[in-house]
Amino acid sequence: MSDPWQECMDFAVTLARRAGEMICEALKNEMNVMIKSSPADLVTVTDQKVEQMLLSSIKEKYPSHSFIGEESVAAGEKTVFTDNPTWIIDPIDGTTNFVHRFPFVAVSIGFVVNKQMEFGVVYSCVEDKMYTGRKGKGAFCNGQKLRVSQQEDISKSLLVTEFGSSRKPETLRTVLSNMEKLCSIPIHGIRSVGTAAVNMCLVATGGADAYYEMGIHCWDMAGAGIIVTEAGGVLMDVTGGPFDLMSRRIIAANNKALAERIAKEIEIIPLQRDDES
Amino acid sequence: MSDPWQECMDFAVTLARRAGEMICEALKNEMNVMIKSSPADLVTVTDQKVEQMLLSSIKEKYPSHSFIGEESVAAGEKTVFTDNPTWIIDPIDGTTNFVHRFPFVAVSIGFVVNKQMEFGVVYSCVEDKMYTGRKGKGAFCNGQKLRVSQQEDISKSLLVTEFGSSRKPETLRTVLSNMEKLCSIPIHGIRSVGTAAVNMCLVATGGADAYYEMGIHCWDMAGAGIIVTEAGGVLMDVTGGPFDLMSRRIIAANNKALAERIAKEIEIIPLQRDDES
Repeated sequence: MSDPWQECMDFAVTLARRAGEMICEALKNEMNVMIKSSPADLVTVTDQKVEQMLLSSIKEKYPSHSFIGEESVAAGEKTVFTDNPTWIIDPIDGTTNFVHRFPFVAVSIGFVVNKQMEFGVVYSCVEDKMYTGRKGKGAFCNGQKLRVSQQEDISKSLLVTEFGSSRKPETLRTVLSNMEKLCSIPIHGIRSVGTAAVNMCLVATGGADAYYEMGIHCWDMAGAGIIVTEAGGVLMDVTGGPFDLMSRRIIAANNKALAERIAKEIEIIPLQRDDES
Repeated sequence: MSDPWQECMDFAVTLARRAGEMICEALKNEMNVMIKSSPADLVTVTDQKVEQMLLSSIKEKYPSHSFIGEESVAAGEKTVFTDNPTWIIDPIDGTTNFVHRFPFVAVSIGFVVNKQMEFGVVYSCVEDKMYTGRKGKGAFCNGQKLRVSQQEDISKSLLVTEFGSSRKPETLRTVLSNMEKLCSIPIHGIRSVGTAAVNMCLVATGGADAYYEMGIHCWDMAGAGIIVTEAGGVLMDVTGGPFDLMSRRIIAANNKALAERIAKEIEIIPLQRDDES
């Protein structure tokens, strides 16, 4: 049987590369930065332009499909998550990096049908790394097959996470205290490259053992989620329960043992779901 | 007048590339990991082999020069810092990254005469980025001239720092509370790629505005220090006083205003100097 979504995935790779070219071009020029939910939650005209290009290209080719995009939601659209084939897009994952020209900036495209991730494309454009994952067919970076690490001992693990964009004192305190608890286990260390999608892809490569974060959105996770699972990893909620794409939180790990061990340490930050109005 | 140290610098670049090749080759194979000062302070046979290659090559060519190397000190040599031309070397900056194949691993070579940094070479070998800085002649990455960012407003800055390898509860608490204080100013964010040398080079490129850390060693800073200053940046002690290569602490920033603002927030961690026995 032929793959019903292969054509969509090929198109997503083409679009991600085109978007990456727009982003790399914009990095050469001056940029105007606007603020969204906090002084650390930024957006630029490039985020909006890239999303427009992606949205109009997809709508033209697949008019019956649904679309959830970071900047469309920021502009007031509701996140309505149905069983319809849905493209979930972050035009620039790592906008703060983009603004500073810190060299990790990704286009993230996830494709979900019946609420199940079918494929994901993450293009880290400054590095020129194209990550892809297709359900049942493995995960790749620039054509090379990806495999998560084999580490099961948390005390020998390297984690990736972020400080996040919230500057609410109680949120920051929980973010930092979770890091402190994990470091104290002890673990080998924590790294932060500033984009959820690239952090998750680093887990898929085996370079990091696990990633966790709270406060991110479905468009930060929908592209890289299936890249992690197709590389042999697991997605889990930070409570230890099943992963929920709309929950704004995730553990993406090399295996269940490590994910559960991380879940045990994490104090939860209360968040409004992506699909709540 | 001809440059008295240009030949040494050319040699350092050649050596750094050769060392990088050894490291990239070793990344393809299994590795045995040993523990040094804490469960997060690691060393491998490759660290030792690369340092031996660098040490023997330099001693053969420049028998009158002095040498301070991370693994020689770990093996019991004292750090004796004199006015003699001195090569200060970290064979693998980011050993934890190396162990995990997290893709930021650098060879760092600093060259100091009369206790003044003359040149520095940092080769981030997985990325294939060769950073160099020569006193009075600028800083470069793969031939491209580097320039720090122009940001003077801390609340719009992106910082790089690390969690460090100490797992002493009081040290970890100070490390985390310093991060929390800085995030609360607020700032745009904190990134950690897992090597001091690469973090400092990211400041030199303008990708990050400032780096600070306590607990590192002279071999972590001697290569990248002059890359930062030659890119237009400043080095400062975390107290706000003058930078001291043996002090095990640093602020490397785009400008004095930002460095001083960071110094104001940082609580000091007591450390034994590199040149104390």
